[in-house]
Amino acid sequence: MEDTLIPSSKLKRIVIIGGGFGGINLVKKLHNKGFQIVLLDRNNYHTFQPLLYQVATGGLEPDSIAYPLRKIFQGYKDFIFRMANVEEVSTQNNSLITNIGTITYDYLVLAMGSTNNFFGMKSVADNAMPMKSLTQALDLRSLILQNMELSLVQNSDNQKYLNFVIAGGGPTGVETAGALCELKRHVLPNDYPELNFSRARIILAEAGPTLLAGMSPFASQKALEGLNTMGVEVLLNSAVKDYDGEKVTLNDGRTIYTSNFIWSAGVKGEPINGINPKSVAGNQRILVDNYNRVEGYDNIYAIGDIALISGDVKYPRGHPMVAQVAIQQAANLAKNFVAVTKSKDLTVFRYKNLGSLATIGRNKAVADFSFIKLKGFIAWLVWMAVHLMTIVGFRNRVIVFINWLWSYISYDRAIRLIIRPFKNN
Amino acid sequence: MEDTLIPSSKLKRIVIIGGGFGGINLVKKLHNKGFQIVLLDRNNYHTFQPLLYQVATGGLEPDSIAYPLRKIFQGYKDFIFRMANVEEVSTQNNSLITNIGTITYDYLVLAMGSTNNFFGMKSVADNAMPMKSLTQALDLRSLILQNMELSLVQNSDNQKYLNFVIAGGGPTGVETAGALCELKRHVLPNDYPELNFSRARIILAEAGPTLLAGMSPFASQKALEGLNTMGVEVLLNSAVKDYDGEKVTLNDGRTIYTSNFIWSAGVKGEPINGINPKSVAGNQRILVDNYNRVEGYDNIYAIGDIALISGDVKYPRGHPMVAQVAIQQAANLAKNFVAVTKSKDLTVFRYKNLGSLATIGRNKAVADFSFIKLKGFIAWLVWMAVHLMTIVGFRNRVIVFINWLWSYISYDRAIRLIIRPFKNN
Repeated sequence: MEDTLIPSSKLKRIVIIGGGFGGINLVKKLHNKGFQIVLLDRNNYHTFQPLLYQVATGGLEPDSIAYPLRKIFQGYKDFIFRMANVEEVSTQNNSLITNIGTITYDYLVLAMGSTNNFFGMKSVADNAMPMKSLTQALDLRSLILQNMELSLVQNSDNQKYLNFVIAGGGPTGVETAGALCELKRHVLPNDYPELNFSRARIILAEAGPTLLAGMSPFASQKALEGLNTMGVEVLLNSAVKDYDGEKVTLNDGRTIYTSNFIWSAGVKGEPINGINPKSVAGNQRILVDNYNRVEGYDNIYAIGDIALISGDVKYPRGHPMVAQVAIQQAANLAKNFVAVTKSKDLTVFRYKNLGSLATIGRNKAVADFSFIKLKGFIAWLVWMAVHLMTIVGFRNRVIVFINWLWSYISYDRAIRLIIRPFKNN
Repeated sequence: MEDTLIPSSKLKRIVIIGGGFGGINLVKKLHNKGFQIVLLDRNNYHTFQPLLYQVATGGLEPDSIAYPLRKIFQGYKDFIFRMANVEEVSTQNNSLITNIGTITYDYLVLAMGSTNNFFGMKSVADNAMPMKSLTQALDLRSLILQNMELSLVQNSDNQKYLNFVIAGGGPTGVETAGALCELKRHVLPNDYPELNFSRARIILAEAGPTLLAGMSPFASQKALEGLNTMGVEVLLNSAVKDYDGEKVTLNDGRTIYTSNFIWSAGVKGEPINGINPKSVAGNQRILVDNYNRVEGYDNIYAIGDIALISGDVKYPRGHPMVAQVAIQQAANLAKNFVAVTKSKDLTVFRYKNLGSLATIGRNKAVADFSFIKLKGFIAWLVWMAVHLMTIVGFRNRVIVFINWLWSYISYDRAIRLIIRPFKNN
């Protein structure tokens, strides 16, 4: 079977779904290795997800942390990009049904990442603000600013507009809480002198017993202390059970009124239709072997957040859903694709944890490396350097650096336009 | 009558509707002059309209040419901003009906600017892409890129996606045509190697006999020559009569197929409900006297695009609808407000034309000053310097400068994310 959508080629075609960290690194590694590489994504850009929270809190422009996918691979003769929504895979026909037509493959790589997990709570899914995409981050920014405007014109009962509740104490939740603290302390009082921001509360609710559960106890403790010092109310062992649009209910029945409820408490896979449900684990991640091959299929692979390697004894519940895993899986998979063409042995995927980082604000961060654990100003410098190096595109790095420098000197967040109506999607 | 929405004050309250060039300059000039100044705008930001076309063509981020209104006036004790849609003025009660409640005034200044004029052509209003606001510019950017993606998957009939038609040969039309030429020449071919951009056409249709009708014959001629050299097809004496979403029809019956139809052929006032229709001229501008006082009212004024001064012999058909007029009217009006409080004589408004500028691309621009007319590289440097100086905010100036420098060196336009669905509003 042949499709007319993609120019045919004598080379074997590898179709990759998703232009996140896994997808773009796989394209880079497969380039000039004798394949026709096809990348599909519903957007025409790669999103640097670790900094989405800075878009949501007015620190960065969306354009600085996203990068056009076509531009990353300019000049690649063996590469084709199509902006498409993949609706279904037909594994018998080796083809994908998409909104732009049918696309065939010799090999398929699923790299769609993860989506928000609301754990079946419809009220939360309907009313919370997630932060997994650029448009969600922009909507959140607009919502926060719109709520400040509203609090001015509803003076009698405006506490809910001044309360911020973040569900989830992972890196995103911790970094967002820190950024909101700086907004509350240095930015919003200048813009809204009529509001009393000493009444504003920033509450971080974490279901488990510690913040940053994926990091060291040292980092968890320092993050907790840092946030407490900054005035964040950290509620541990506090899972959110309901949010009706103005009231958050916790597992012990406590309630908090807020119009600003940010969801960063869970992610899950979003598998494609047509994959055998037996190959899909809990949390909707797709079960793969140690070579990232999807269980039950010969020519379908999965990498990144959506892939769950079941056979790694060091990570019995799967690898962490972070960029490093996706990037390393992409490198491993590219190597194995090439090995197959040369009839060489395949290499088992082994995750090498390069360390993890989280910032909680000005001069404050925590960093775990195998050889050292850092906190404070040094960790904060490391955090900035690592993020600046990882952002795609030289122009973007320059613009992000200037914005950070500007914020550091001025204590300001420059970007606070309300440019679209809030849409919860 | 007193409203509860704005804190009461012993000072006379001046309410200004609209945070464009007129509105923000009036606030600045009235500051510390003994009034309570209230600014209303439907957005929370000021838009630097002259560079909207660069947002639409991927050269600048929206955040670089917009600036939060609250931030401009931080620290002004005599100033209040409210984000509001004004629905009606009740001139008997000296009050405004808005979506956030009733706001009273002692003096009212209408500075709402202008909106697109489609001259009653519903098909054009429904289907054309205007470029008068930040969201419209973002929508246009997304539309152009989406059309490039579509042209890839509809190979048999994709000429309409590769045709760009701009209606209106004023500064916006001319600058947009030039920017699209550079996209076509330097940017899109790298992103879409599968498309043949020698087939892409950029057509500028102007109803009158010259481009840049408001500038000198020298500037008009040089702009025409410049655009011709760059490959723009300039159609003079060609008014658009219809656009059904894929076909533009001109006044002589010629048709051009295009999915990219940009409207910059006319603007008009958008007067507020409650103003006596006798005080509204053709083109929907509000008739004011030489002191910018609305005809028939004692305490209502209008400045900027929406105001039409009927008594200026040098401008019998009204002043040009440009930023310079609004800025000078704001200064004049502020002076007269102060004069009234001191029982001094009022000063008649006299427009001083400081010159006009238009760029058509890399190293190419035209500039008219009373003492000299410039073209080419020098005019282009002047154009850049004037625009950089006029943009609000130091950070914005730095970011715009870096983007321009980057584009100049790399021949690239960095910002080409499709971040929202096309919405024609």
